[in-house]
Amino acid sequence: MDLDKLREATRAQMPDKRWKHTLGVVDTAIALAVRYGGHTEKAELAALLHDYSKAWATDRMETIIREQSLPADLLVYDKDLWHAHVGAWAVASEHGIADEEVLDAIRYHTSGREGMTLLDKIVCLADYIEPGRDFPGVDDIRKLAESSLEEALVEAFGSTIKVLVKRGKRIFPETVAARNDLIMQTKKA
Amino acid sequence: MDLDKLREATRAQMPDKRWKHTLGVVDTAIALAVRYGGHTEKAELAALLHDYSKAWATDRMETIIREQSLPADLLVYDKDLWHAHVGAWAVASEHGIADEEVLDAIRYHTSGREGMTLLDKIVCLADYIEPGRDFPGVDDIRKLAESSLEEALVEAFGSTIKVLVKRGKRIFPETVAARNDLIMQTKKA
Repeated sequence: MDLDKLREATRAQMPDKRWKHTLGVVDTAIALAVRYGGHTEKAELAALLHDYSKAWATDRMETIIREQSLPADLLVYDKDLWHAHVGAWAVASEHGIADEEVLDAIRYHTSGREGMTLLDKIVCLADYIEPGRDFPGVDDIRKLAESSLEEALVEAFGSTIKVLVKRGKRIFPETVAARNDLIMQTKKA
Repeated sequence: MDLDKLREATRAQMPDKRWKHTLGVVDTAIALAVRYGGHTEKAELAALLHDYSKAWATDRMETIIREQSLPADLLVYDKDLWHAHVGAWAVASEHGIADEEVLDAIRYHTSGREGMTLLDKIVCLADYIEPGRDFPGVDDIRKLAESSLEEALVEAFGSTIKVLVKRGKRIFPETVAARNDLIMQTKKA
């Protein structure tokens, strides 16, 4: 795989601001992989590609979800979740990415899931805390990320859930399942 | 059914404070039933019995959940949820309550569920807003209860979810499903 070409192709999918965010996620994911014994090359690849379809038109994503039989549940919930599954499909079909661990980290980087892998956790958390992020509580999550991936993600998903509650929006069940599971993991540790 | 005997029996299960709360839920549930065209007698009965097992010992409830094959999921989540299912079983077996609508309203008064009935909504909301309740946001929920059961419950479940997030505790998936479903109902209205 030619990483430079993949970078070019990814950069072409998104506006400058999103690309800057992507580079922040790449750096943060590599740093988290080093800290927590993750696979740095996979972390870099998944982070690079995590928002591949983020800027795609809603119609295009909806068509792909229907035609490629991606989880139909997605269509019931917030559009913000669509790009993750569509992106995994896109980088597999357009660039031959076949590593299921990398594809899963892309698929679940927004929602999380029960039983998140180390790579899932790294990419998801990097997406929350990359240097360009600025939302209430992000510094607390960055601090937690120095000592526990799981505690940081519990806080991160908690912040997402609080925002959805405040806005009167529905909460994706998989995110609640992910957070519940991570809380159990922190208790076992 | 002798309602006076049932009142006596229920009163005997709990300390004074809980009994006072129960009477508040009864009054509120009847008022909500009148306002929203619910069945006032069923609302009164379910409200009277909703916390029948609330003060029971944890061990006793756990034994009943196991021996009576109540949902095993309960044991994984917060003990606060147990008394609802245990209570429904108790009033059926000890007092012959057989009306499944009433039993369901008792079963789901704490967690909620997807597809809540009108009676479920009335008892659940009455439990949140009876006059003795005092928590941040309760007056907003009382205000919403004047115009929409569903909007009031979305806010009520939201307040519960926010508390659980703040405390780093797990969220019962059924409560999220209930809230998501109610949000869809308010949008259809």
